[in-house]
Amino acid sequence: MRIVVLAGGIGGARFLRGLKAAAPDAEITVIGNTGDDIHLFGLKVCPDLDTVMYTLGGGINEEQGWGRAGETWSVKEELAAYGVGPDWFGLGDRDFATHIVRTQMIGAGYPLSAVTEALCRRWQPGVRLIPMSDDRVETHVLIDTDEGRRAVHFQEYWVRLRAEVPAHAVVPVGADQAKPAPGVLEALADADLVLFPPSNPVVSIGTILAVPGIREAVAGAEAVVIGLSPIVGDAPVRGMADKMLAAIGVETSAAAVAAHYGAGLLDGWLVDTVDAASVAAVEASGIPCRAVPLLMTDEAATTAMARAALDLAEAVREG
Amino acid sequence: MRIVVLAGGIGGARFLRGLKAAAPDAEITVIGNTGDDIHLFGLKVCPDLDTVMYTLGGGINEEQGWGRAGETWSVKEELAAYGVGPDWFGLGDRDFATHIVRTQMIGAGYPLSAVTEALCRRWQPGVRLIPMSDDRVETHVLIDTDEGRRAVHFQEYWVRLRAEVPAHAVVPVGADQAKPAPGVLEALADADLVLFPPSNPVVSIGTILAVPGIREAVAGAEAVVIGLSPIVGDAPVRGMADKMLAAIGVETSAAAVAAHYGAGLLDGWLVDTVDAASVAAVEASGIPCRAVPLLMTDEAATTAMARAALDLAEAVREG
Repeated sequence: MRIVVLAGGIGGARFLRGLKAAAPDAEITVIGNTGDDIHLFGLKVCPDLDTVMYTLGGGINEEQGWGRAGETWSVKEELAAYGVGPDWFGLGDRDFATHIVRTQMIGAGYPLSAVTEALCRRWQPGVRLIPMSDDRVETHVLIDTDEGRRAVHFQEYWVRLRAEVPAHAVVPVGADQAKPAPGVLEALADADLVLFPPSNPVVSIGTILAVPGIREAVAGAEAVVIGLSPIVGDAPVRGMADKMLAAIGVETSAAAVAAHYGAGLLDGWLVDTVDAASVAAVEASGIPCRAVPLLMTDEAATTAMARAALDLAEAVREG
Repeated sequence: MRIVVLAGGIGGARFLRGLKAAAPDAEITVIGNTGDDIHLFGLKVCPDLDTVMYTLGGGINEEQGWGRAGETWSVKEELAAYGVGPDWFGLGDRDFATHIVRTQMIGAGYPLSAVTEALCRRWQPGVRLIPMSDDRVETHVLIDTDEGRRAVHFQEYWVRLRAEVPAHAVVPVGADQAKPAPGVLEALADADLVLFPPSNPVVSIGTILAVPGIREAVAGAEAVVIGLSPIVGDAPVRGMADKMLAAIGVETSAAAVAAHYGAGLLDGWLVDTVDAASVAAVEASGIPCRAVPLLMTDEAATTAMARAALDLAEAVREG
């Protein structure tokens, strides 16, 4: 079975670990969000790609969900001693090495997709990880500051400001000019199943879908497309997806996110058991829906979630 | 008093520490060798400038004479895990931060001299440190390999090959096109005293003098020019200066190095007491010479050496 997963960072990566356990023989291609990418200290940092790579490759810091296990922080200390910022983004020494290798390869002319493949040769994530695009896309968030309304980089909004100020708009700058990376459209065309893990529907999956050609390829794919709600009850499972949904005028509920993706995109939707009451409404909109536990509390729970997605896909296919 | 010192790495840096102690009120300008600079992992590394900066700024690893005290090695470990080399150059995490800041500033358009000034704002070395040139100069060494005679980067010869193969030539690539960095010629013109510390006469001081205009400025300066022999007995005090001298056909002796610089450049020369017998020969060539202890065994010895250089300058001036 060929599965394509559109993935953000922590949530997507954890879900993928469950999916690998639930479908050990599947050929999994991950289309990774690069809208969170940021240049720091002259280095190209790809937080979502790295979180997937480290998580599936066994190098992740399990407690925090991002960054490296056994990390040290000498470089960051020294940069601070030089007075060089920003100081709000957590780059450890081991992580720095990844960005140094990536930046060097990009400087030598390799596209991000080739660089990602090279980095994965070490990590052996057990999936094919492709960035959504080799072109630069940078998610900006419109906020009110003392100097008026300003667009700030997503990481500045998310990490420095902790999404504590209202977001008036979310703009994937450059997305309209970006092309899907080599392999993205082919993987979608060849897929039996496309999964939207419980990643942020706006700044993770939404950004991937904003690259011209990808939304159309998902909608037009022969594959069954199944999504898992990132909203449980009236709050995001983790992160601050509610802030991002508010910015695009979508209610923070499992049913509203399903409606946001729409029946044109989704062939099936999983909501948490606490949201069982919304199953009927989602199905009424033309999207088959089931209520199952959607909290990735441990690997067993995550594997069960992935299995529920595979089961729903099977049911939809047999229709 | 205004003193200009032409300095390489470890030897130059240690001498400078003694000089600061011997002449606490002097205004010291250091013209640093950049021929040893190397691009590693996409980063610009300036070993000699950094050794001077760290040594005078209190950040040096005292035992090894280069690199940072309290260093960690995570980045290097990770680069090795990615299979990205070279692995023979010792870059610690703290050191990496310096190269990251430097590379970022150079990428932003600042010349190396401005970057060095910015880095020194943190380290407060107590001297004005100027690279010999803002232009790229790279010392290459001609050696015999299995694939025939090849030019290798100085660091590859020095660090990877430990100068264990004969050097047939030493070429400061790019020197003929380089211009002295802003402030270099002005400092030499305004100096009361120019010192050649016991740095490598070929790949450190020789490279600095190879930048068009610098040799002429030293020779034409109103300042007294005093050198300290890096050769004690028939061997370099440290490093492998003998290999480099052989490559340019100069005998490994204090007197031969004095003759190599020549009376046109030197107004005075210090040899070690074990070389007292060569004082007469050096003086016969027109260079006032004294024999004093030249081993930088500790700070007191180094300060005494610097004081001896100041004394000789005074004698020459009055002479």
